[in-house]
Amino acid sequence: MGPPDVSDTNPLALDIVAGNRRALARAITLVESTRADHRRDAVALLDQLAQISDRQALRIGLSGTPGVGKSTFTESFGMQLIAKGLKVAVLAVDPSSTRSGGSILGDKTRMERLSREAGAFIRPSPSQTALGGVARRSREAVALCEAAGFDIVLIETVGVGQSETMVADMADLFVLLLAPAGGDELQGIKRGIMEIADLILVNKADGDLKPAATRTCADYAGALRLLRRRAYDPDDFPKARVVSALTEFGLAEAWQEMTTLADWRRKNGHWEKRRAQQAQFWFHQELRDGFLTRLTADADATETIATLEAEVLRGTLSPAAAAERAIAAVMQK
Amino acid sequence: MGPPDVSDTNPLALDIVAGNRRALARAITLVESTRADHRRDAVALLDQLAQISDRQALRIGLSGTPGVGKSTFTESFGMQLIAKGLKVAVLAVDPSSTRSGGSILGDKTRMERLSREAGAFIRPSPSQTALGGVARRSREAVALCEAAGFDIVLIETVGVGQSETMVADMADLFVLLLAPAGGDELQGIKRGIMEIADLILVNKADGDLKPAATRTCADYAGALRLLRRRAYDPDDFPKARVVSALTEFGLAEAWQEMTTLADWRRKNGHWEKRRAQQAQFWFHQELRDGFLTRLTADADATETIATLEAEVLRGTLSPAAAAERAIAAVMQK
Repeated sequence: MGPPDVSDTNPLALDIVAGNRRALARAITLVESTRADHRRDAVALLDQLAQISDRQALRIGLSGTPGVGKSTFTESFGMQLIAKGLKVAVLAVDPSSTRSGGSILGDKTRMERLSREAGAFIRPSPSQTALGGVARRSREAVALCEAAGFDIVLIETVGVGQSETMVADMADLFVLLLAPAGGDELQGIKRGIMEIADLILVNKADGDLKPAATRTCADYAGALRLLRRRAYDPDDFPKARVVSALTEFGLAEAWQEMTTLADWRRKNGHWEKRRAQQAQFWFHQELRDGFLTRLTADADATETIATLEAEVLRGTLSPAAAAERAIAAVMQK
Repeated sequence: MGPPDVSDTNPLALDIVAGNRRALARAITLVESTRADHRRDAVALLDQLAQISDRQALRIGLSGTPGVGKSTFTESFGMQLIAKGLKVAVLAVDPSSTRSGGSILGDKTRMERLSREAGAFIRPSPSQTALGGVARRSREAVALCEAAGFDIVLIETVGVGQSETMVADMADLFVLLLAPAGGDELQGIKRGIMEIADLILVNKADGDLKPAATRTCADYAGALRLLRRRAYDPDDFPKARVVSALTEFGLAEAWQEMTTLADWRRKNGHWEKRRAQQAQFWFHQELRDGFLTRLTADADATETIATLEAEVLRGTLSPAAAAERAIAAVMQK
């Protein structure tokens, strides 16, 4: 089997694979669009890219509440990776912008150095979209960055609602950035999040806060030891470490931990297994959403659904029974 | 039109409407089951209840991180409502038990007084279910409690992942219970959550913590004033207040705020509108899920999907394109 025949390939796909950043930005705008014709083009583009490129980046999910220093960390950490000759894409995922209509990581001005680097690509979170849309768009943006040849894709999210789980479901590693805190606050960390974290980094280990950061890190390390061992971890993971995004203290060690973990998972088959499970999960999501989209485009189905919906709104029919009837009617047709 | 003909009605439905608590508990177990025959029975039961009962409870969503005193609050607050002659159901929603396999509000022992009351019904969160399942099951349990004649349904959740949004999507009011904190921590509150809260209660306004609680409450009240006015709120909502679940300080006032808000929304049409929007939202969720369930029960469809899924797992087909082909194949049939 020779190289794939690219004569029929969308020029945009070829530009992306060639590393053209403007083409990448345009493609991300395309997957972000909700217009039906854009959506068709986006699906075709992603499909072509899947056929002509099998590049894989290390996808790192990064979560941290506002105030923890996430932008500073991303800037410092990203610059270290760039210095190693790696190409770094940063994608922000912010489902809270659904309700507020604004993006927290509103612009690139908070990562001034990184945004000027030729090997870096920063894409802020768009606003005003449905929650399901956030997941699909982010996942597809990750796929575009991989096809464009980035070595690292950092997927950033604030700790809002379901966003951490969503990001973990599209990342190879999940890093949780925390601030130094009193011992009492340890219980405040969300239980489900502890269980998906591969690496906890306690930031601000500089100046007056260094002792508190060290203490907090020890507390989290203790808490992590209480969790059940996960099959996809080497013995001493998940880990907690201190870093300072400001002084760059601990960043090289944090990167070392990430590569150690990634290499171990690759060697032991967990990397591919996780990717396959994620692909399956997203496929099922697409099936769910795609069916609904298809229904709302069909006039007969729309009418059936509207009639049933009216009964649901009046309270005379339960959502479950209405859905059953609607599906039966549409499938019969 | 006379009363509905109940001669064909499931005896379980009649028992629930008659206020039989054991029947209610059995029905909740039924909606929690994932077995296909149980599911059919559950859908039929909910449908019958929708036809024979139009009772509405005040559904109050209540969120608070572990350690904030949520069980103590629910116990004290619930006892106050019971003393007013109201019937109170408490449902716990804990999506984190998906991963951990355990329930945080594991039993009724943490609400000892309330669990002994004839007018109260407490249902802990079951474990080991898929996330989508948590939402459906909780929503259907709420509908069952309403049909059983409860005046208040308290839907409790820990602040994990998407659970707050999910609970808000099935509640008439959303109450956020917080602990006294330093001024710095204000920024740590999740932005999306602030925007769905109708009432913030700062707990532990007793003993040494009272000044901190009062200060924290003022901070939150200030933050709430910065949010955009919502069309479905009277002028001075959302509000922040201090309470002490331990001494019962402020609980009567908190209840007063909830009834004021609920009455205002009823009078201004927002209550019905919100319920209708929620019903529509859940109907669409059911459509999505129901379609996938239907597909996996069809041998031909299962084969088509398995073939496409294999391509997705190999990385040669994008989830979006695979879903499109699967849907096209199944709809054509």
